[in-house]
Amino acid sequence: MSKISLIVASEKIDKLFPAITLATTAAISGWDAELFFTFWGLLALKKGYAPSGVSLDYKAYEEKLTQALASGSIPDWKTVLEQGLATGRIRIYACSTSLGMFGLKQEDLESFVDSIAGAATFLSKAKGSDVSLFIS
Amino acid sequence: MSKISLIVASEKIDKLFPAITLATTAAISGWDAELFFTFWGLLALKKGYAPSGVSLDYKAYEEKLTQALASGSIPDWKTVLEQGLATGRIRIYACSTSLGMFGLKQEDLESFVDSIAGAATFLSKAKGSDVSLFIS
Amino acid sequence: MSKISLIVASEKIDKLFPAITLATTAAISGWDAELFFTFWGLLALKKGYAPSGVSLDYKAYEEKLTQALASGSIPDWKTVLEQGLATGRIRIYACSTSLGMFGLKQEDLESFVDSIAGAATFLSKAKGSDVSLFIS
Repeated sequence: MSKISLIVASEKIDKLFPAITLATTAAISGWDAELFFTFWGLLALKKGYAPSGVSLDYKAYEEKLTQALASGSIPDWKTVLEQGLATGRIRIYACSTSLGMFGLKQEDLESFVDSIAGAATFLSKAKGSDVSLFIS
Repeated sequence: MSKISLIVASEKIDKLFPAITLATTAAISGWDAELFFTFWGLLALKKGYAPSGVSLDYKAYEEKLTQALASGSIPDWKTVLEQGLATGRIRIYACSTSLGMFGLKQEDLESFVDSIAGAATFLSKAKGSDVSLFIS
Repeated sequence: MSKISLIVASEKIDKLFPAITLATTAAISGWDAELFFTFWGLLALKKGYAPSGVSLDYKAYEEKLTQALASGSIPDWKTVLEQGLATGRIRIYACSTSLGMFGLKQEDLESFVDSIAGAATFLSKAKGSDVSLFIS
């Protein structure tokens, strides 16, 4: 069984989209996908959360991405995530330390979050990954 | 055969340079190197493109990097890439979704781009990598 | 023996903290941890250096992190690093090219830096990693 492990440390749409696309594509291809949301990435797991645009470095291109999302040439990240979750091969962890930093509790998070976990859990899940990435 | 797989999601010179240096060093050491340019990283593949400086977070140090490039203590990223490509062990993919977002076609890209590909192709190439990195 | 290999390319506290936490957690769990500090990440290795806040993208949340550090709910990165170094399983490399760019010498760096190294050394150490990440 192949495996991809991602640490998602930003909720900017230009970071969230590649993270979720990789996870979903992997899951559809039969891989296991372990996703650990930490720091600013954790915000994306809040109920009803909408990403806060693109990274400042590429603000000049935000309109291109907005148009691609509006036209459907790039799908919404939540739609892509739902396709991935339907495979049953994606696990989503919320970083316990980051949760404390934001004063959030598990009930503040989307129901697709599997569990709250720390770095040790992530490492044990990520061990032996074919591909591991820190996305921020 | 060892393998390194990189997703290059920024064309800032402080991201492009480490990406290309790692790929070329790996290739010269006999590794295969798979490079997938996506989002803002795709811009670096445009014919005649020059990177747009360093990340905003480190704008204060841009002059140091400019001086290092001017003095030759840090080589130009294209020069490093050419050394790597000469080994025949570097493959360069342009993300199809990002290409659409920017309204670009393959003929707008440098001739060293091997093919246009999606996330599934990247994953199949990256499978079993010794080192995989998301650089942005 | 499991192994994690990290390239640390930023000294922002929201990047440095996850890097060091992952390395220390891995080392405490019996993994080897190879850390290569490059570009702006190298600054974190300077004697007596204090990180320059959080990434611009998340400046609005800097106060939350500052409070978490002040209250002790998030420990200082140097304290976490010391715990990791005590295991004897963390190796810290300073990128030779970046050192030249900043006009620094080994004696300007903290004593916990094992050696000055280039990309080829990093790749040989990182080969066969269970988890590899580029943190910036």
